[in-house]
Amino acid sequence: MIDARVAASFGKQSMMASLGAELVAAGDGACVIRAPRLAQFGQQHGAAHAAVAFALGDSAAGYAALTLLPQGQEVMTAEMKINLLSPAMGDAFEAVGEVVRAGRRLTVVRAEVFALSGETRKSIALLQGTMIGV
Amino acid sequence: MIDARVAASFGKQSMMASLGAELVAAGDGACVIRAPRLAQFGQQHGAAHAAVAFALGDSAAGYAALTLLPQGQEVMTAEMKINLLSPAMGDAFEAVGEVVRAGRRLTVVRAEVFALSGETRKSIALLQGTMIGV
Amino acid sequence: MIDARVAASFGKQSMMASLGAELVAAGDGACVIRAPRLAQFGQQHGAAHAAVAFALGDSAAGYAALTLLPQGQEVMTAEMKINLLSPAMGDAFEAVGEVVRAGRRLTVVRAEVFALSGETRKSIALLQGTMIGV
Amino acid sequence: MIDARVAASFGKQSMMASLGAELVAAGDGACVIRAPRLAQFGQQHGAAHAAVAFALGDSAAGYAALTLLPQGQEVMTAEMKINLLSPAMGDAFEAVGEVVRAGRRLTVVRAEVFALSGETRKSIALLQGTMIGV
Repeated sequence: MIDARVAASFGKQSMMASLGAELVAAGDGACVIRAPRLAQFGQQHGAAHAAVAFALGDSAAGYAALTLLPQGQEVMTAEMKINLLSPAMGDAFEAVGEVVRAGRRLTVVRAEVFALSGETRKSIALLQGTMIGV
Repeated sequence: MIDARVAASFGKQSMMASLGAELVAAGDGACVIRAPRLAQFGQQHGAAHAAVAFALGDSAAGYAALTLLPQGQEVMTAEMKINLLSPAMGDAFEAVGEVVRAGRRLTVVRAEVFALSGETRKSIALLQGTMIGV
Repeated sequence: MIDARVAASFGKQSMMASLGAELVAAGDGACVIRAPRLAQFGQQHGAAHAAVAFALGDSAAGYAALTLLPQGQEVMTAEMKINLLSPAMGDAFEAVGEVVRAGRRLTVVRAEVFALSGETRKSIALLQGTMIGV
Repeated sequence: MIDARVAASFGKQSMMASLGAELVAAGDGACVIRAPRLAQFGQQHGAAHAAVAFALGDSAAGYAALTLLPQGQEVMTAEMKINLLSPAMGDAFEAVGEVVRAGRRLTVVRAEVFALSGETRKSIALLQGTMIGV
């Protein structure tokens, strides 16, 4: 299932296009985004820069929040915290975002980012933050 | 002043090149990075995606830490927290990173990211996190 | 199950005694702590101060980490982030900590704190942070 | 200078009284709180528990925010991140909170907590977070 508002917003984010990201699922307070590991977004050792995991995790968390916001609102990140668990190697990444608590004014979210290599799926980053409807 | 180790590491980060980022200063526990606002890294309203402020702030903070690490070590982000203060508009961004405490095992860092528009310099993000030497 | 090292350390924390906290379980990368809501640790409206949820969540997360550290090591909090989800009312609190990733140098942890009222168990805080063995 | 609203709210927090905390200054987006190191709030080695630095830093940051909120509003912590820099030893603690950005809906704050020993003032914790007016 892909929420129509999320799909429309995702399609307007040039960052998602630049990352080669694909919206896999969005609905009911959850969202999944996938993207290949691209050579142009590496850190000094060839792994993806921490900002790639941040971009995917933050977007998955934000779009998870958007699925529960009132019609006509858009979502913005107020703050986000990321713990990096492993180097961002692998062929591709999958970010899974979810709403922890949808409040009247703030939505608390969480995301986990995985590196995909063949059949393997390894957790590389954990995010926790706050989204706000605008 | 630009620390030689930071310059070498910065030059190997394809992410920094993709962002058009320039290393302005690095030494004595501080680092400054500048980058233009590029159309291909936007969110749905044309402002830069939060991941751009994250990428620049995290890198400025990490390289601030690297200037104080023992020779032969490299720097990795263990965790980073970002509060977004204003939409990332403007012509360019400047990230200023600094070491708050250089411990034996962990380095606590801070960064602030500014949007530059003509003569104006507006704070758009504040980061606080932990770097580790490897 | 209660890990012997955790029990010994918990017994030496005067903070845990002052909060009336009880160690309910500790082992295999997880820990549960319970405490009554005490009048002397309130904020201005009578709910418990945010520092109570922090104290219980941080300790549950830290002791979860300790169960996986090598013998002879102790655990310290390097950093911790807390999102407050609801006012800390209720009769008592339960903090559930777990290890997300036990690395060689850092342990990434998570905790959730619940308010207990009769049969009800309501999530009031979510924590994510980094523990270090010393 | 001590803002009257902050003084009234501080006086109602039983947590501040239990910590022996004193409101030293509050006004214009800043706040200073001092408290002795009390034996009953220690961790397993006799230093103060991380929750003490959290309680003082979070309160100083929150009251800094309150000085800038519209009359009739109260302040609540939405989220807070703490990096612990040094063991919380010393005779007393001083927490200095400040507003980084007062937005229409959210106030971004920062605090630093110091351990005081005779003439020495050592930074032991750094906090960054989000306050909300209610």
